[in-house]
Amino acid sequence: MIDLRSDTVTKPTPGMMAAMMAAPVGDDVFGEDPTVNALEQRTAAMFGCEAGLFVPSGTMANQIAVRVHCRPQDEILLETNSHICLWEAGGAAALSGVTLRTIDSATGDGRLGASDFTDKVRPDDMHSVRTRLVCLEVTHNRGGGTVTAPGAINDISRWARQHKLATHLDGARIWNAIVKTGVPAKVWGGMFDTINVCFSKGLGTPVGSMLLGPRDLIAHSRRIRKLFGGAMRQIGFLAAACDYALDHNIDRLAEDHANARIIADAVAEVPGFTLKPHEVETNLVWFEVDAQHGTAKDVAERLKVSGVLVAPLGTRVIRAVTHLDVTRAQCVTAADAIRRLAR
Amino acid sequence: MIDLRSDTVTKPTPGMMAAMMAAPVGDDVFGEDPTVNALEQRTAAMFGCEAGLFVPSGTMANQIAVRVHCRPQDEILLETNSHICLWEAGGAAALSGVTLRTIDSATGDGRLGASDFTDKVRPDDMHSVRTRLVCLEVTHNRGGGTVTAPGAINDISRWARQHKLATHLDGARIWNAIVKTGVPAKVWGGMFDTINVCFSKGLGTPVGSMLLGPRDLIAHSRRIRKLFGGAMRQIGFLAAACDYALDHNIDRLAEDHANARIIADAVAEVPGFTLKPHEVETNLVWFEVDAQHGTAKDVAERLKVSGVLVAPLGTRVIRAVTHLDVTRAQCVTAADAIRRLAR
Amino acid sequence: MIDLRSDTVTKPTPGMMAAMMAAPVGDDVFGEDPTVNALEQRTAAMFGCEAGLFVPSGTMANQIAVRVHCRPQDEILLETNSHICLWEAGGAAALSGVTLRTIDSATGDGRLGASDFTDKVRPDDMHSVRTRLVCLEVTHNRGGGTVTAPGAINDISRWARQHKLATHLDGARIWNAIVKTGVPAKVWGGMFDTINVCFSKGLGTPVGSMLLGPRDLIAHSRRIRKLFGGAMRQIGFLAAACDYALDHNIDRLAEDHANARIIADAVAEVPGFTLKPHEVETNLVWFEVDAQHGTAKDVAERLKVSGVLVAPLGTRVIRAVTHLDVTRAQCVTAADAIRRLAR
Amino acid sequence: MIDLRSDTVTKPTPGMMAAMMAAPVGDDVFGEDPTVNALEQRTAAMFGCEAGLFVPSGTMANQIAVRVHCRPQDEILLETNSHICLWEAGGAAALSGVTLRTIDSATGDGRLGASDFTDKVRPDDMHSVRTRLVCLEVTHNRGGGTVTAPGAINDISRWARQHKLATHLDGARIWNAIVKTGVPAKVWGGMFDTINVCFSKGLGTPVGSMLLGPRDLIAHSRRIRKLFGGAMRQIGFLAAACDYALDHNIDRLAEDHANARIIADAVAEVPGFTLKPHEVETNLVWFEVDAQHGTAKDVAERLKVSGVLVAPLGTRVIRAVTHLDVTRAQCVTAADAIRRLAR
Repeated sequence: MIDLRSDTVTKPTPGMMAAMMAAPVGDDVFGEDPTVNALEQRTAAMFGCEAGLFVPSGTMANQIAVRVHCRPQDEILLETNSHICLWEAGGAAALSGVTLRTIDSATGDGRLGASDFTDKVRPDDMHSVRTRLVCLEVTHNRGGGTVTAPGAINDISRWARQHKLATHLDGARIWNAIVKTGVPAKVWGGMFDTINVCFSKGLGTPVGSMLLGPRDLIAHSRRIRKLFGGAMRQIGFLAAACDYALDHNIDRLAEDHANARIIADAVAEVPGFTLKPHEVETNLVWFEVDAQHGTAKDVAERLKVSGVLVAPLGTRVIRAVTHLDVTRAQCVTAADAIRRLAR
Repeated sequence: MIDLRSDTVTKPTPGMMAAMMAAPVGDDVFGEDPTVNALEQRTAAMFGCEAGLFVPSGTMANQIAVRVHCRPQDEILLETNSHICLWEAGGAAALSGVTLRTIDSATGDGRLGASDFTDKVRPDDMHSVRTRLVCLEVTHNRGGGTVTAPGAINDISRWARQHKLATHLDGARIWNAIVKTGVPAKVWGGMFDTINVCFSKGLGTPVGSMLLGPRDLIAHSRRIRKLFGGAMRQIGFLAAACDYALDHNIDRLAEDHANARIIADAVAEVPGFTLKPHEVETNLVWFEVDAQHGTAKDVAERLKVSGVLVAPLGTRVIRAVTHLDVTRAQCVTAADAIRRLAR
Repeated sequence: MIDLRSDTVTKPTPGMMAAMMAAPVGDDVFGEDPTVNALEQRTAAMFGCEAGLFVPSGTMANQIAVRVHCRPQDEILLETNSHICLWEAGGAAALSGVTLRTIDSATGDGRLGASDFTDKVRPDDMHSVRTRLVCLEVTHNRGGGTVTAPGAINDISRWARQHKLATHLDGARIWNAIVKTGVPAKVWGGMFDTINVCFSKGLGTPVGSMLLGPRDLIAHSRRIRKLFGGAMRQIGFLAAACDYALDHNIDRLAEDHANARIIADAVAEVPGFTLKPHEVETNLVWFEVDAQHGTAKDVAERLKVSGVLVAPLGTRVIRAVTHLDVTRAQCVTAADAIRRLAR
Repeated sequence: MIDLRSDTVTKPTPGMMAAMMAAPVGDDVFGEDPTVNALEQRTAAMFGCEAGLFVPSGTMANQIAVRVHCRPQDEILLETNSHICLWEAGGAAALSGVTLRTIDSATGDGRLGASDFTDKVRPDDMHSVRTRLVCLEVTHNRGGGTVTAPGAINDISRWARQHKLATHLDGARIWNAIVKTGVPAKVWGGMFDTINVCFSKGLGTPVGSMLLGPRDLIAHSRRIRKLFGGAMRQIGFLAAACDYALDHNIDRLAEDHANARIIADAVAEVPGFTLKPHEVETNLVWFEVDAQHGTAKDVAERLKVSGVLVAPLGTRVIRAVTHLDVTRAQCVTAADAIRRLAR
């Protein structure tokens, strides 16, 4: 099976396994896992941040950020189809009493610009929530793996600072944006108060995300991680995989991007399939299927018969994702299978 | 001063005061206030509902409805500029862990139609909130006092039932809609699971709102009212004012609507003032002022000098509201003052 | 019927009614009700506090205090049978995410001393809640209307300050303590950061409580009152009753205390009835009935036949309360009825 | 260093490492990790439960149980010094709006009996929380590793069922109780609705706990795990360690218990040290140090100089824990070091 459902399905390579096995470990609840500590420092340094906190998932990293920046009755400004809105189980409200104020991406691909934020700070009035945090997502998953330009982000961050709002980047796939744009990690890190980065997607590790930010906020985050039940013991094994991934798996994301274009080109050729967005920038290929093909599920079933797995994520919407565990040759095969769906 | 800031500023008339003074009262926490009990039954019967609960404010009625229908991690579908979104202090998230999913009114006046709800139920998936409740607001305050047509509401309610969603009407100003359309209370009541109606706005009482609905939900609501600190003692005084208002102050809302049109006509004549919406349906007149007039606050200050109070509710936005305590003659005077703002 | 169930059942006297009717009112959400504003200032001044906030109930006043002093994950130290623990519907946890840490009164009558707090501050550790607030209750309802001595309170407050904890007094019946001890309001006010005082119990008004404290906390409390749905409009009517009560109904509480002793003496004479506590200090008489009498409900039913209402508040527990609406003669009659229960 | 601070500090043995490396893995968020799935089934079967859910920590397992059994405004009955009360960061209130009602262990060692629960169900009244869940902890950490007798638990569970309360066992160290008593897992499992068992303490794995219970509750728990950010990807590596531990590390807990008695005997010989409780049943040794020794921290510092680490968990309280990574010989050495503290 060629599994294009998600870049989370990757299994560690022998090299990564060897690194995991060789890792010195300790009790991370006591702050004594040397591999975790080193990874937190290394990743923070990469992004020019003071400190980092290793957590079980990107969802936990984002929800810790929500809680560390906000108190109940606060409001977050974020894109309508961002991960925090769609796929974090209502955590902002349910865990932290925080309201989400969604802004539609005018381009439909998850990108926002500073002008989208005009007049979005609620008045200082007892009837109103307190606008408190801006969250952006790069690359934007539901938007199609798109990269909001650093210039646009800078404008948004400046606007946020002017209004005394905190900023958080859901950078679950920031590595793809770094490779795509050539803009280094430090620049992305410099534009936000906190960042979530994930090791379990494009970087190919089994588990692990990290929240990066100023020392005091990360110290507070450590308490929230405990509250959420995310404090673990000898997890240096997991951190070692991440360390290995930072050494070996960043630059190769360019291959995933090239492979995604192979898939996208095939999709573009099938009448009744529409790429959304038209231009595939990184490793995510989202497309819609029209009624002549049946539902998204029908199409996914047909591809499965051809040995290709994709993710139907709505009645008409399909996502195909390239990653460390699918080769260029497999993507060519998958592309052929997609082309054969033309009627 | 001619006070057009809100219909909440009205003071009880001598007749209403006399009714208040004559009311038999008791301890409503024990369910022993006869005037409250009678009002709950009378109002419920008006709207064809099984039961009612008297509460201190429309905000509390709405927030009880949120909590009685939803549990943490649930989501509400409602219009972007509805009262629950703008003016209830983030209560849905902060008190009940509930996410708001906002839908923009295509007509810009707070109205929604069934087609606005297409595909708005989240998938049954652990990543997702559970879509649970549809809230509508009639008349729609920020939308300009507009009345969504009962036919459109019926379509939305049918859609909601098909998807096993509950429905709640924020009918703080439902009386204005009843008078405007001639559609009786029972019809409005029949289209929703629960309704909030307010006595302290157009009906002119000092205090009081009521949540209406099925007997079991109202029994549960009584517990939530206690939780929120809204259970009071000898409040038959307040209920008596509401009873009086039901007898005397509903039909006369037509005067408020006519008076609002007098104000609106004046606004329409001033270059640089724009009615939003253009057509004033009930007692709320919302308009925008362009830069030649300065800010909304500047305009409000100038009108104050002429003896007219209006509410600047945004940099460029003003609301003027007619009610029991402003006569037709006063509205003509206010309209003249507005016309004199033309430059 | 002689209603001894609670001091909340009182109905306003003609004098109080006249004061209510004569009150100038305004929209209190806009801060424009002159009678409310004056009452807030007057009451604050009485207790030597900077500011006050009029709210619909003592429960709301206490729950606002919880929220204004604490954030989620904080802990409150308070007596096991205090009102906040027993009768506020789980609000501290459900509304504010706050944990209650209960301390048993060694004397069994709700009183605590500074030594009860030794070692009660949780360590500064991520596994732990943050100890944040001490709540006391005077007079202590479930404890039997008892008054913790000001000296003991001072010791507790000093301990709290040393540990940087805030202090709140649930003074729903503080008036009874003032009359009982002769210690003036200012002294009680000076020992706490915030105080809740109620007008609807011993003072005999229909509705109303007030939270007192420093200006900034009360400003924040105003926002929380809005969140809870407790902001009302022309409530000067209610405030006027409170103003009247401050003028006329404080000193007379001594009569209620004397009347309570009449009831208590009768209880003490009935074999199988046990006063808890033995000494009745103010207007609350709590006693237990043993099995020879059946349950508390059975006893209450028998007294009802004699025209006396008491409150069975547990299988074996009964509360009888004296107040403005029961005369000395009625209490003598009630005492006779109680004595006749002896078998 | 002989590390007796906690049984969480153990590092995997070569055998366990080999098992981890050999494990087939998959994306557990998609339910596709075969090693996790097998472990969930195996563990559930051991305890006679329908289903299991692998989670990052015992805290998360307990907090999921709280949320799956309770809704906001509910109350849990549990021992005052249980893990959920002391060391879960206020999660019951902060995450789920739930109140903790603590019951002191009469024996001071964490044990409760059915008589401790008499009259502990709150009345069905709007003033009150809803009593909903009983939580027990076996072995009881703060109580000193004590094992409540299955007979007593049975009585408590029967009482709970009679009152329609759910029951949850915090069995983080249930393995020690199984070995100590010889009562098999299925019997413990049969007495509760849900159970938390941990693999990272006595069983010696790096990470991992499991919530066990009926199929529908565990399905719901899966959603809550997502909400809390505890859903991970290829965690079969971690599950394989647990599988290995079930095969190899249960019976050997008897050694830890014997070793703990070696430590305890030494403590008992030091004047000014007091075992709490006097009898050490499993692998936890708790003792108090009196003032002649300085504080607990002072004593821990002195032991550290001798190469022995213990945990000062209060001004006068110390915990020493035996586990897989300390041999009998090391415990003898540690015991000698403790004896040398006698003055």
